Amino acid sequence: MSGGAAIGSAGAPGPAGAVGVFDSGIGGLTVFKALRAALPPGERLLYLGDTARVPYGTKSDETVIRYALEGARFLQRRGIKALVVACNTMSAVALPELRREMPFPVVGVIGPGAEAACRATRSQAIGVIGTSATIKSGAYVRAIACHLPEARVVSRACPLLVPLAEEGWVDNEVARAAAAAYLTEMRGTGIDTLVLGCTHYPLLKKVIGEAIGPDVRLVDSAEATAAVARERLRERGLLAAPGGEGGGAADGPARGAAGEAARGAAPSGGDHFYVTDSSERFREVGSRFLGSRLETLEQVDIAA
Amino acid sequence: MSGGAAIGSAGAPGPAGAVGVFDSGIGGLTVFKALRAALPPGERLLYLGDTARVPYGTKSDETVIRYALEGARFLQRRGIKALVVACNTMSAVALPELRREMPFPVVGVIGPGAEAACRATRSQAIGVIGTSATIKSGAYVRAIACHLPEARVVSRACPLLVPLAEEGWVDNEVARAAAAAYLTEMRGTGIDTLVLGCTHYPLLKKVIGEAIGPDVRLVDSAEATAAVARERLRERGLLAAPGGEGGGAADGPARGAAGEAARGAAPSGGDHFYVTDSSERFREVGSRFLGSRLETLEQVDIAA
Repeated sequence: MSGGAAIGSAGAPGPAGAVGVFDSGIGGLTVFKALRAALPPGERLLYLGDTARVPYGTKSDETVIRYALEGARFLQRRGIKALVVACNTMSAVALPELRREMPFPVVGVIGPGAEAACRATRSQAIGVIGTSATIKSGAYVRAIACHLPEARVVSRACPLLVPLAEEGWVDNEVARAAAAAYLTEMRGTGIDTLVLGCTHYPLLKKVIGEAIGPDVRLVDSAEATAAVARERLRERGLLAAPGGEGGGAADGPARGAAGEAARGAAPSGGDHFYVTDSSERFREVGSRFLGSRLETLEQVDIAA
Repeated sequence: MSGGAAIGSAGAPGPAGAVGVFDSGIGGLTVFKALRAALPPGERLLYLGDTARVPYGTKSDETVIRYALEGARFLQRRGIKALVVACNTMSAVALPELRREMPFPVVGVIGPGAEAACRATRSQAIGVIGTSATIKSGAYVRAIACHLPEARVVSRACPLLVPLAEEGWVDNEVARAAAAAYLTEMRGTGIDTLVLGCTHYPLLKKVIGEAIGPDVRLVDSAEATAAVARERLRERGLLAAPGGEGGGAADGPARGAAGEAARGAAPSGGDHFYVTDSSERFREVGSRFLGSRLETLEQVDIAA
């Protein structure tokens, strides 16, 4: 239980609580950035990157679920009022368990990404690429079927793209060869939309776009996810006050409109970043991701 | 403490104990296979692959050391009399801590691999490739300097080669482009020997050989490590009886000679494989590594 703040149901904090953003590593910072732009500046974000155990995408469902619950409980102990699961693998595999165990709203990236793809497609044929675990789960196929039952989905696991992005090889011969090896078959299947079903993939947008061809639109779920998270907080009266410390008396809608005007604001001082491996590399790469220096970075043991 | 068996010093079991083989994942099976061939058939091997947290090569020293101690303690509780660290990263980073904490001999892969390279080189210029953590540690440079102080060492981290090997892309366009990207610069540095400083790399021998050129000899440390492990057990009177269950009264040298004759024998029934992630993939890939089916495979939680 995460006592303290008021209002929330079943022991969860009210508007005064922070919004948790949980990823297996560093890729979720794209979602953090989109949330920072979509939420009122008074909203406090706590980011957790399980950098010691990254990647999740090659692990079994069972292990991903265990790690997901450990991370969520860690953030719960720090008083979050909502959790955004920024990792596609975790969203694909562990969302039901997280929603069952946690007393606050849990938003994943798959639903919002699938919905954005359904809005974008004209041919009603959608491609999805992701880690092995994400693709094997069939989560995108199911989510797309909910929004557009007549859509045809062509999916493919691309395990090498994460280490490529982490190596910084996003636009060289190796990246081009890998993108071609994964995507050549997908050309000519009639897809006009391709979901980048992994937070690392936007870094490889250029070579992915070249491999899949100019007529296919690439969908990155970060912005769609941030919009859904904001809506979920607003519905439940959990949005923080627009400029302040997110006081307990805040109530959603009015604040939401104010926050809207503040889109694109710099991260507020109250944000905090937790990582499970040494923070050096995260600070370096993360600062590049966010375009500003990561000040409040802390290494923690979430299994403890 | 691992009670039970006799003879060993400081609470470690005597010859009746098993030999632990510890790797971050599946690559260490190359070392397991070499040990199986080098040790008497009566020797029992316990393999631990930390498949839930693989890879170690991109993590910080601190995290690798923590995981190394957890794994070693897990095997200690199962009564091992010696530990072979089959992972280059762990050998590079955590050997001093493992030797300080464990009451039995601990053998790594770096020393034996470095020694084999020093024996092989004529130009006294040696190349070393490995994970980021292994190369950053400088462990190969130091180990080579011990055996051949006048040697010149050219080293390079090749982080993408592990995920390439795991993807099974060992001989395609992507593998060739990656090997060329990492190794082209190393050509013309005068090296005549290249240490494959990661247990996954032998799977990519062909493309590595093509990228580095036909005049450079590739050194894989698995066999050298197995020979050193056998010698260490023999010196301490810890070798098991040649064909039996490794009874407590066994004494080294005589048994050693008998074991010599049994090289290449099939794994004895007593071997056991522990993994920390779901065992399905390990069984499949591992059976391919070993050329025989992995029967006794068990998923465990070593952090517990």
